[in-house]
Amino acid sequence: MTKNREQLHLNLFPMGVGHHEAAWRHPVSTPARILDPRYYHELAQLAERGLFDSIFFGDILALGHRIKHNVHTVLEPITLLSSISAVTERVGLIGTASTTFNLPYNLARMFASLDHLSSGRAGWNIVTSSADPLEAQNFGLEVNVDHAERYEVATEFVDVVVGLWNSWEPDALVMDKASGVFADPAKVRSLDHQGKHFRVRGPLNVPRSPQGSPLLVQAGSSPAGRTLAASRAHAIFTAQQSMEESREFRLDIHRRAAAFGRRPAEVTILPGLVPIVAPTVAEAQELVRELNELIVVDYALAQLSVQLEVDLIGSELDAKVPPLPDVEHVRGNRSRFVMLRDLIEAERPTVRELITRIGGLRGHGVVVGTPQMIADHMHTWFEEGAADGFNLLGALQPTIVESFVKEVVPLLQDRGIFRTEYATSTLRGHYGADSSARQAVRG
Amino acid sequence: MTKNREQLHLNLFPMGVGHHEAAWRHPVSTPARILDPRYYHELAQLAERGLFDSIFFGDILALGHRIKHNVHTVLEPITLLSSISAVTERVGLIGTASTTFNLPYNLARMFASLDHLSSGRAGWNIVTSSADPLEAQNFGLEVNVDHAERYEVATEFVDVVVGLWNSWEPDALVMDKASGVFADPAKVRSLDHQGKHFRVRGPLNVPRSPQGSPLLVQAGSSPAGRTLAASRAHAIFTAQQSMEESREFRLDIHRRAAAFGRRPAEVTILPGLVPIVAPTVAEAQELVRELNELIVVDYALAQLSVQLEVDLIGSELDAKVPPLPDVEHVRGNRSRFVMLRDLIEAERPTVRELITRIGGLRGHGVVVGTPQMIADHMHTWFEEGAADGFNLLGALQPTIVESFVKEVVPLLQDRGIFRTEYATSTLRGHYGADSSARQAVRG
Ligand SMILES: Cc1cc2nc3c(=O)[nH]c(=O)nc-3n(C[C@H](O)[C@H](O)[C@H](O)COP(=O)(O)O)c2cc1C
Ligand SMILES: Cc1cc2nc3c(=O)[nH]c(=O)nc-3n(C[C@H](O)[C@H](O)[C@H](O)COP(=O)(O)O)c2cc1C
Repeated sequence: MTKNREQLHLNLFPMGVGHHEAAWRHPVSTPARILDPRYYHELAQLAERGLFDSIFFGDILALGHRIKHNVHTVLEPITLLSSISAVTERVGLIGTASTTFNLPYNLARMFASLDHLSSGRAGWNIVTSSADPLEAQNFGLEVNVDHAERYEVATEFVDVVVGLWNSWEPDALVMDKASGVFADPAKVRSLDHQGKHFRVRGPLNVPRSPQGSPLLVQAGSSPAGRTLAASRAHAIFTAQQSMEESREFRLDIHRRAAAFGRRPAEVTILPGLVPIVAPTVAEAQELVRELNELIVVDYALAQLSVQLEVDLIGSELDAKVPPLPDVEHVRGNRSRFVMLRDLIEAERPTVRELITRIGGLRGHGVVVGTPQMIADHMHTWFEEGAADGFNLLGALQPTIVESFVKEVVPLLQDRGIFRTEYATSTLRGHYGADSSARQAVRG
Repeated sequence: MTKNREQLHLNLFPMGVGHHEAAWRHPVSTPARILDPRYYHELAQLAERGLFDSIFFGDILALGHRIKHNVHTVLEPITLLSSISAVTERVGLIGTASTTFNLPYNLARMFASLDHLSSGRAGWNIVTSSADPLEAQNFGLEVNVDHAERYEVATEFVDVVVGLWNSWEPDALVMDKASGVFADPAKVRSLDHQGKHFRVRGPLNVPRSPQGSPLLVQAGSSPAGRTLAASRAHAIFTAQQSMEESREFRLDIHRRAAAFGRRPAEVTILPGLVPIVAPTVAEAQELVRELNELIVVDYALAQLSVQLEVDLIGSELDAKVPPLPDVEHVRGNRSRFVMLRDLIEAERPTVRELITRIGGLRGHGVVVGTPQMIADHMHTWFEEGAADGFNLLGALQPTIVESFVKEVVPLLQDRGIFRTEYATSTLRGHYGADSSARQAVRG
């Protein structure tokens, strides 16, 4: 599990036809393609041409209230990635699945199956689902269980899944025609898990997959989320805004990982990056302006109202953002809230400024400029220990992703900080997490 | 929803490298390929070359106790079919999923997603899972809930899923760049289901899929299973042994369907057929002999012991099959038991004869002979009203399926009872169940 700290890692995180709220309205955009599998095949093939470690799909287990002006996730990630597996060779395939609203046996085999279908490229982004009752109400609850319990369930859930993945030893399948022995029963063990939240007998009904244990990814920011990530994940998505915060986050994860007996190099930290890349700064800025002009203000206000837990609908757009609640009173996504609050305190934006600053680009790190500027930014964060790589969000897809692959990737390669060909064939291999899968859980 | 009763329907049901217990030991067999996605891609492409309506994968939610001599299902059907969707164009993709051990919201979106990925080729084989505690114990139960309750749950589950599929009207996605309207909220409705077993709010987070409501398939044989099938399914798999039984089954389904206001033509009944096809009868018989000689007797006895609920392990092979329990005492699969019991009463086989008769070919209708003989058999069953088509089980894959496609399909076409090209592009289209999806549930 040696991690080459000389090279950074890249994950592509597509959403709809782009992460910018108004991407679908841009003249070059083809929003009807969000239901066309070939659109996703092409994006994954593009990521593969760019030698990305992985492509990742998010997931929310409910349709939001506000679909009038945008719909975010449309296809289910595991089925989508299974389809993509058939038309790609090397790029890793990370899907989001909730530990709150899934059954561990089924989820374990879905990912094991995807790992077979992709010859070892499956990864699971572990989420606990949100406090938004819309998700809970699709699963027989009125509201989601509280944050602490969600992470307690998640931890047990992950351990059950990893246990099931490991229920087959690597050489359990014998398939000896002469003797008639298909499998060695001594090398397939039941799990007999009897925990607080789950009872699962096992063994898994899918033979050991190429990676053994698919890559684990996590994106929690709360202490509980960080602990789950530091104890078990191989890669972590974050949405830190500044290099300083991101460096602190990375050190914090390293400290937590050490407490679980893991080395820092076992965890790849991937802050979100929204590169608005164009041949000149002026052209990049023009693209941002075009996109921001297409934002439907009511929609952006509704979204911000939810995130800030302040009613902004009908706000005076040129007034400053009104006072926010104390973080202790926030029921929803607290880390998102804190990120926005800090940004508002630092920049004191008007409502309109906040909309274009956030509503448009979802609050991940945004860099607007030339390929050189994007590469500089990434290089600096990487060298300064603020990132082991990046979770790349295309504001406008595939356009900006194409520019990134064509213009930025070669610069990173010239600097010797990005691979010039795939050196490994599995997702864990790409992330330098390719040692025995059984080491994945140490907590 | 006009069904062309002049043409029959074909579904391919692959399992491992063949349904014969010993297929994997045959010299031409490549058992290691059961984990290779390309093996399944090739099988599906073969079915598509043969103009089959669909390919279908079964599923059991546990690894059986006896893996030493064979392992049946290895990849999870929905992920596998999603992969296949990327390399096929027309053939329907039917996956098994349990209503006892799944969450309806998740299952609805998996199939809706598969339907998008395949441009309208998704189908769901609805099962309630078995009385075998191995399945239940992977989901926190000691034993499965009883048969009647399983079907009660299944009925509610199916209605929730179909309701979710219909939560988006066909033209809900507007995507009008000029006005900024992405979707019409008035055309997306929540389900607000509050039933005995499930509470599901909806709407689905996947826009309406090409078929609207994917094809529903069922394979129950009990009265409760038949009622579910007759009220809701578009296609039914059966394992009737004789033409007379199959005709009775079909009439029974028609009667039940009529009670739900459905026409017979809305339900396609597909008995299982195991064609052992070779250029001459002698060669076909030789292939059966080769396969039967490779059966591991202990394994076959263990399987029969479970199905007959009689301990046959260590039996005298040349003695007659011992007396069976009364059907009322059978805890497991009763329709399977009755089928075997009737066969034993009719043929009075020795244990060894029963093994080769059943253990080898799993008790579906077997025809050993020339392409002409297989076509005659199918033609007769079809004409006599014992079948609307067949669920084709290849004893040895892909070999026998290749022979069937090459030698038998043209004969069926010559007789005018099978399509010479795909006339429709969706799975419901193939099965003549392509009217408004909302009609699927009438119960
Ligand atoms: C890049 C990124 C992607 C995420 N994707 C998802 C997702 O697809 N589904 C989801 O429910 N949560 C997603 N989250 C939310 C996190 O899993 C997590 O809940 C959130 O960061 C709040 O942290 P906490 O759970 O520790 O409070 C994502 C977060 C980040 C930073
Ligand atoms: C061709 C065929 C395929 C079947 N596939 C499955 C399967 O994949 N998984 C499963 O649990 N049951 C499967 N079954 C079992 C049926 O769903 C059903 O449970 C069985 O026929 C007994 O009928 P009953 O449930 O009405 O008692 C299959 C049955 C047939 C005839």
